[in-house]
Amino acid sequence: MTQMSSPFTAPTPAFPDWMQSVQQRMEAALARLLPPDEAIPARLHQAMRYASLGGGKRVRPLLAFAAGEISGATPEKLEIVSAAVELIHAYSLVHDDLPCMDDDVLRRGRPTCHVEYDEPTALLVGDSLQSLAFELLTRETLGAPKQQLEMVRLLAHASGSCGMAGGQAIDLESVGKALTQPELELMHALKTGALIRAAVLLGALCGDDIDEAALARLDRFAKRLGLLFQVVDDILDCTASTATLGKTAGKDAAADKPTYVSLLGLDGAREFANELRTQAMDALSVFGAGASRLAALTDFITYRKF
Amino acid sequence: MTQMSSPFTAPTPAFPDWMQSVQQRMEAALARLLPPDEAIPARLHQAMRYASLGGGKRVRPLLAFAAGEISGATPEKLEIVSAAVELIHAYSLVHDDLPCMDDDVLRRGRPTCHVEYDEPTALLVGDSLQSLAFELLTRETLGAPKQQLEMVRLLAHASGSCGMAGGQAIDLESVGKALTQPELELMHALKTGALIRAAVLLGALCGDDIDEAALARLDRFAKRLGLLFQVVDDILDCTASTATLGKTAGKDAAADKPTYVSLLGLDGAREFANELRTQAMDALSVFGAGASRLAALTDFITYRKF
Repeated sequence: MTQMSSPFTAPTPAFPDWMQSVQQRMEAALARLLPPDEAIPARLHQAMRYASLGGGKRVRPLLAFAAGEISGATPEKLEIVSAAVELIHAYSLVHDDLPCMDDDVLRRGRPTCHVEYDEPTALLVGDSLQSLAFELLTRETLGAPKQQLEMVRLLAHASGSCGMAGGQAIDLESVGKALTQPELELMHALKTGALIRAAVLLGALCGDDIDEAALARLDRFAKRLGLLFQVVDDILDCTASTATLGKTAGKDAAADKPTYVSLLGLDGAREFANELRTQAMDALSVFGAGASRLAALTDFITYRKF
Repeated sequence: MTQMSSPFTAPTPAFPDWMQSVQQRMEAALARLLPPDEAIPARLHQAMRYASLGGGKRVRPLLAFAAGEISGATPEKLEIVSAAVELIHAYSLVHDDLPCMDDDVLRRGRPTCHVEYDEPTALLVGDSLQSLAFELLTRETLGAPKQQLEMVRLLAHASGSCGMAGGQAIDLESVGKALTQPELELMHALKTGALIRAAVLLGALCGDDIDEAALARLDRFAKRLGLLFQVVDDILDCTASTATLGKTAGKDAAADKPTYVSLLGLDGAREFANELRTQAMDALSVFGAGASRLAALTDFITYRKF
């Protein structure tokens, strides 16, 4: 895919600098919000920090910060909601990597949590990161209490059996099966899409009041973006190297898991990614310059190499 | 231990009938609040229902309902908060039974979740039950929004690394070690005590406004009760049969895990249980007849045979 020009006004600072500043801010926020290394039980807390700090693209926090620009959310509130979403993501990686699931040994270029620590600890790390996500969303004021309750509800729903964990369950059942495109889309809408939607909506919701129509627009954008993210992931899984990805490449194809590449071919998957990009951008157009970060992130997700 | 007479006025209906009515009500509530069997992903939802329905003493819901009598909470609200606490408890059992943790095959007289389904499904069942607990606490109005946020925070804190999951981590590290009584108490205060406290406090909080002093009293009661529950568990683990317990008896001693019986001897543990019962009752005395159900439950927990 060749990079296309964006119809959105370019904001300052430039995108790469903005991205880096959010990533650094989030690293510091997570380091502050996670229990300290030495707090009892120390080994569990060390493992929770190992699994959550020092890496990752922080795509979900970037999305929350970008969406927060639409509603004028403060960085302090965006840090909290981004940390909550990122901890749910981090817990899912720890559990997905376990021997009874994907049995993976490499994550973000380092040994996975159960390899670095042990299996029971990794299980408890995932469980505890999930609890901490909900605790963070309730410990400080992030908006009107009713709105804040709605944020907790959104994240809980996005994480559970009708969201991320449900998508993982469909994924498990689909190994070795020929899924149709709608079936594959449902799986990904839950497995990765639900949390991406939550990141966008929570980012927007912790700012000034945002009307139902705008939220629905953002939700439409987030749905297309979530799918786009997965399609690009599938493309990278079969075109990039393990070293570039920082995780085992080609493992989905090796595990005989259905992917957009296996369904549509490499060219077809790239074409589909471009279509989804266009649809995502269309959903954003109503926000004008306010959505320029979200638009730039959409391009980043479309054209990333890792 | 011989049953002692209670200083609290006996309420109607009689305790066994009340207990049964709460248990039946909770079974129906959980059946209604869990996603239906046929909802996609069906296998995950079936396994979630398998792990949560059809058994258990429902001690935490009983505690929430009993505490709710102090603040005049409605049964409809008590059902929701009780279900949330019970789902956290159910998730912890599913994960604790996994091969990498206790590797247990029997729970509530039936095959454990990973035996009946499979390991990856059981992992996702636990994860999803936790998410659902927080979703339930935010889907309906349970009080003033600010109070409701506090309820979510309490449950999240009680579940995580400074609560139940943290206690489990200490338990893992303590196998084969000689713990002192304070160390053993910290482990249990987190592992079982935190969720018991949450059940009592959430039950009280979903009723009329309850002042800080009363909450602190209830919390003191719940702390003693949580410990009492564990001491009695340890006694039963070495005196009752697997058939009576519905789970594998003697497994803690067999696993060389520290227990109150290994620390204090059987008679010493019984004596300690009686002390804790007295302290718990003392903390309740200020509530008079309003706490009669909590007092009856304390006796039930002290003198139970399974």
